[in-house]
Amino acid sequence: MIQKISHIGIAVKSLDEVIPFYEKALGMKCEGREEVASQKVKVAFFPVGDTRIELLEPTSPDSPIAKFIEQKGEGIHHVAFNTDDVAAQLEQAKSAGVRLINETPVPGAHGMQVAFLHPKSTFGVLTEFCAEPKHH
Amino acid sequence: MIQKISHIGIAVKSLDEVIPFYEKALGMKCEGREEVASQKVKVAFFPVGDTRIELLEPTSPDSPIAKFIEQKGEGIHHVAFNTDDVAAQLEQAKSAGVRLINETPVPGAHGMQVAFLHPKSTFGVLTEFCAEPKHH
Repeated sequence: MIQKISHIGIAVKSLDEVIPFYEKALGMKCEGREEVASQKVKVAFFPVGDTRIELLEPTSPDSPIAKFIEQKGEGIHHVAFNTDDVAAQLEQAKSAGVRLINETPVPGAHGMQVAFLHPKSTFGVLTEFCAEPKHH
Repeated sequence: MIQKISHIGIAVKSLDEVIPFYEKALGMKCEGREEVASQKVKVAFFPVGDTRIELLEPTSPDSPIAKFIEQKGEGIHHVAFNTDDVAAQLEQAKSAGVRLINETPVPGAHGMQVAFLHPKSTFGVLTEFCAEPKHH
């Protein structure tokens, strides 16, 4: 079940340029930075209410974020929902006819399990599910 | 000061087509629908955590949402932040060099006071501030 919005992902060319904008123009605080090698991005987080803004800078020209910026320019890239069970959430979406980018959860930032739905079957919104890893 | 994300605005061609997607594929509940004549849109709300998804369907070909869909297709349109004071928030953004769409707050949905920042000066993110109206 979807619990809340984990984050809104925003594609930017340069964290060093955009972080000061969120701090000075909006008065938000950058909570931290992280590199996610598997996605070829550097990320900066701004907590806001029970969710956060996540700025994404590509670290390579073949990063999905670099391609997005090339095609559409900087801007909102995806919405991520926290769920208690990514696999069950994927199953529900699939049953409703949604095309999946990830058939099963993959490792994401912060040790989360994540999976993406294809924007062509979600009315243009790149949609991510994410969950804390399960401990056994 | 920014308190939380009020909503994420998503441009769609047809509420009747997209509401069932959010309900069936994502398991979210539509809280209500409203027409905002000033923006030439019909809106549907899905609460999620302390924020909500807001689907926007144009009611006229000259609606800003119709133009957005024509140029970019369906997808995420804007992010709205709750603030205690829209005018002060605009002042802060302006001081930081941001170009404003609304120099002063205007009436929005739910009797809120709202104002937009220009996406050309916010790294591609159409950004809205909104606040409950002040009572005297």
